[in-house]
Amino acid sequence: MEEKIRNCLGPSGNYEDIYTLAEELKRQERAVIDFSTPSNPLGVSKKIKAELRRHLKYLHNYPDPEARRLKKRISQHYGIAPETILCGNGSTEIIYLLATSLKPRKVIIPAPTFSGYERACHISCNSEVMHYRLKAENNFDLDPNELVRTMEENPPIAEDRDSHRTYAGATPFPKCNMVFLCNPNNPTGRLLKRDGIKTIANSASKLGYYLVVDESFIDFRPDHSVIWDVAENPYLIVLRSMSSFYALAGLRFGYGVISRQLAEGLKEYKEPWTVNSLAQRAAVVALKDKAFRKETIVSVQEERRYLEKNLGKMGMELVPSEANFFLARMDHAADVLLKLRRKGILLHDCGHLQGLDSTHIRIAVKSHRENTILVKELKGILQSCNK
Amino acid sequence: MEEKIRNCLGPSGNYEDIYTLAEELKRQERAVIDFSTPSNPLGVSKKIKAELRRHLKYLHNYPDPEARRLKKRISQHYGIAPETILCGNGSTEIIYLLATSLKPRKVIIPAPTFSGYERACHISCNSEVMHYRLKAENNFDLDPNELVRTMEENPPIAEDRDSHRTYAGATPFPKCNMVFLCNPNNPTGRLLKRDGIKTIANSASKLGYYLVVDESFIDFRPDHSVIWDVAENPYLIVLRSMSSFYALAGLRFGYGVISRQLAEGLKEYKEPWTVNSLAQRAAVVALKDKAFRKETIVSVQEERRYLEKNLGKMGMELVPSEANFFLARMDHAADVLLKLRRKGILLHDCGHLQGLDSTHIRIAVKSHRENTILVKELKGILQSCNK
Repeated sequence: MEEKIRNCLGPSGNYEDIYTLAEELKRQERAVIDFSTPSNPLGVSKKIKAELRRHLKYLHNYPDPEARRLKKRISQHYGIAPETILCGNGSTEIIYLLATSLKPRKVIIPAPTFSGYERACHISCNSEVMHYRLKAENNFDLDPNELVRTMEENPPIAEDRDSHRTYAGATPFPKCNMVFLCNPNNPTGRLLKRDGIKTIANSASKLGYYLVVDESFIDFRPDHSVIWDVAENPYLIVLRSMSSFYALAGLRFGYGVISRQLAEGLKEYKEPWTVNSLAQRAAVVALKDKAFRKETIVSVQEERRYLEKNLGKMGMELVPSEANFFLARMDHAADVLLKLRRKGILLHDCGHLQGLDSTHIRIAVKSHRENTILVKELKGILQSCNK
Repeated sequence: MEEKIRNCLGPSGNYEDIYTLAEELKRQERAVIDFSTPSNPLGVSKKIKAELRRHLKYLHNYPDPEARRLKKRISQHYGIAPETILCGNGSTEIIYLLATSLKPRKVIIPAPTFSGYERACHISCNSEVMHYRLKAENNFDLDPNELVRTMEENPPIAEDRDSHRTYAGATPFPKCNMVFLCNPNNPTGRLLKRDGIKTIANSASKLGYYLVVDESFIDFRPDHSVIWDVAENPYLIVLRSMSSFYALAGLRFGYGVISRQLAEGLKEYKEPWTVNSLAQRAAVVALKDKAFRKETIVSVQEERRYLEKNLGKMGMELVPSEANFFLARMDHAADVLLKLRRKGILLHDCGHLQGLDSTHIRIAVKSHRENTILVKELKGILQSCNK
């Protein structure tokens, strides 16, 4: 299971974003159809746009470094204590904050998953990264008991663990071990049920292992969140993002839910003013908008079914997903992606991810108009390949 | 000159922001008159607001992690190479990036100056911080030759210096020594002329000492910038911010101008997507707006004169400033600040800054309407004190 770390790609190391493709094709960015990053097919909500318009004239003020109004809103929304919330410039900031301040010695990361965890640990503290391989034949599902065994086989050094037990906000933190889980997982869209996560979280607490559960895509299955379990488990850290579900990736907002004591300690390491004022405003409005959430879930379900049916027909192997994207496998994927790129359609090549290869791609669920274009163009490309 | 580091205050450790005061007074934030953070009295420009309004519907896209269009704009504006520009979530991100990646052993920081440099070095790498004391009797002006002598007396360890000379983008960086200069200095508003900075920069290069020149307030005296000198000096790092001059503090954008090779190395340590899409858009428009810059400079000069005249009359000792704020000294400052707070007027208490005490305050230059209110209220408070 343990193996050498592959070259960690930088933020745009793979040059797969709309900016690169737009430049390549000499088009406007908005003329690129972006299936490479999952986002809400409904786009930015009207209420958010109205709120941001109202707030443009106050941009001369620094943002609230404590994001007090927003924390209060999140706290009311979930019924959790505001002191357990750390707001970030995307959940990315919290991932890097955990790595730079806690400096884990050993990190268990499933493969495949989001490559950002490994990069953060690699550049911040040169952690020993162990890839916990998820099996294609099981739809890349994670077996909680097996993961617990791996944690038990790689326990934190006793002195680290004991010093965490008595940790009292002192600088610097004692070292530790850490597991990252993304739920639903990116790029597979597979959900690990709440019971499974709780099994792992309980063992993490007993072993003195930090468990970071990235719930960036949990809004499609909120019943499986473990955000409420943080209050009773100082080793559990939950990450949330508003990028994908609320179509706010460009504005940057995510947060961590972290035990009171650890959150207090991490604040000492946090850069000030990282969450801009508009992101704070937008997030408050977003959390109030129940109707938008409902509409989003319905729309994504419908469009997911549409893609599932039509992409399946073309012989693509799809992993059944609980999120707003799919992991798909097809031979000659690289060739197909290239042909789509030339038409201004961008998909996410998963060839650089641990545990996958260049036959794997991630496809976001987009609006019906865009999904129809994808299906039509793919059909055309595959037919011409088979001739 | 060397002394113990005072307790570094966190981002809102001193609770001096509009959010705290608004909460305290149970008012809206916009009802607070904020003289505590220097900002453009003209507010956010119309052109920027129009651009942001147009861009709200594209917020579902991730920002360009490389901020290519913005770098190109900055590069054209100053005639510098785009590869030497690193964009950040405020210049704050670049300050922290320098500290976490270069991990300076020894850092020379003038006193008084912005407290962020010390905090960044303290939490990122526990540098040995030396305060270079600026003298009140010299208007807190810095003597370049004296600073050079201090650097010579504290040279980088030979092996560090030599490994930097052969540095080729490898991870991790060899350790180093570093000097921070803010020009014009915050909170004094004093300008160190270009020749003086060049003297220090030349010595820094010879000694193998990184010199970080924070030009967050240089737009009022752009002729004294050393942004063009970076191309020939790999030890010179220039920071710029668009928070104050362009009234964009809430949106977060700043950048560093750094030698090509060092910038390439620092990118390996940089978090992705830190500069949100709206900040990128706003900054491009701002740099194109020559008329707004001109109008700003005229307006700040006029209002600075107004405050200088009227605050001087009341017996406040003002340090002559080249920026959009003043350092002022008055007895019983704490008491006066408290009385102003109760009226919803916020000034910056400089008591927590190295080299100053609680008789020092920083006053931003604001619009004529607001400046008039400050003068009137201050007059009232001082008269009632003298009774």
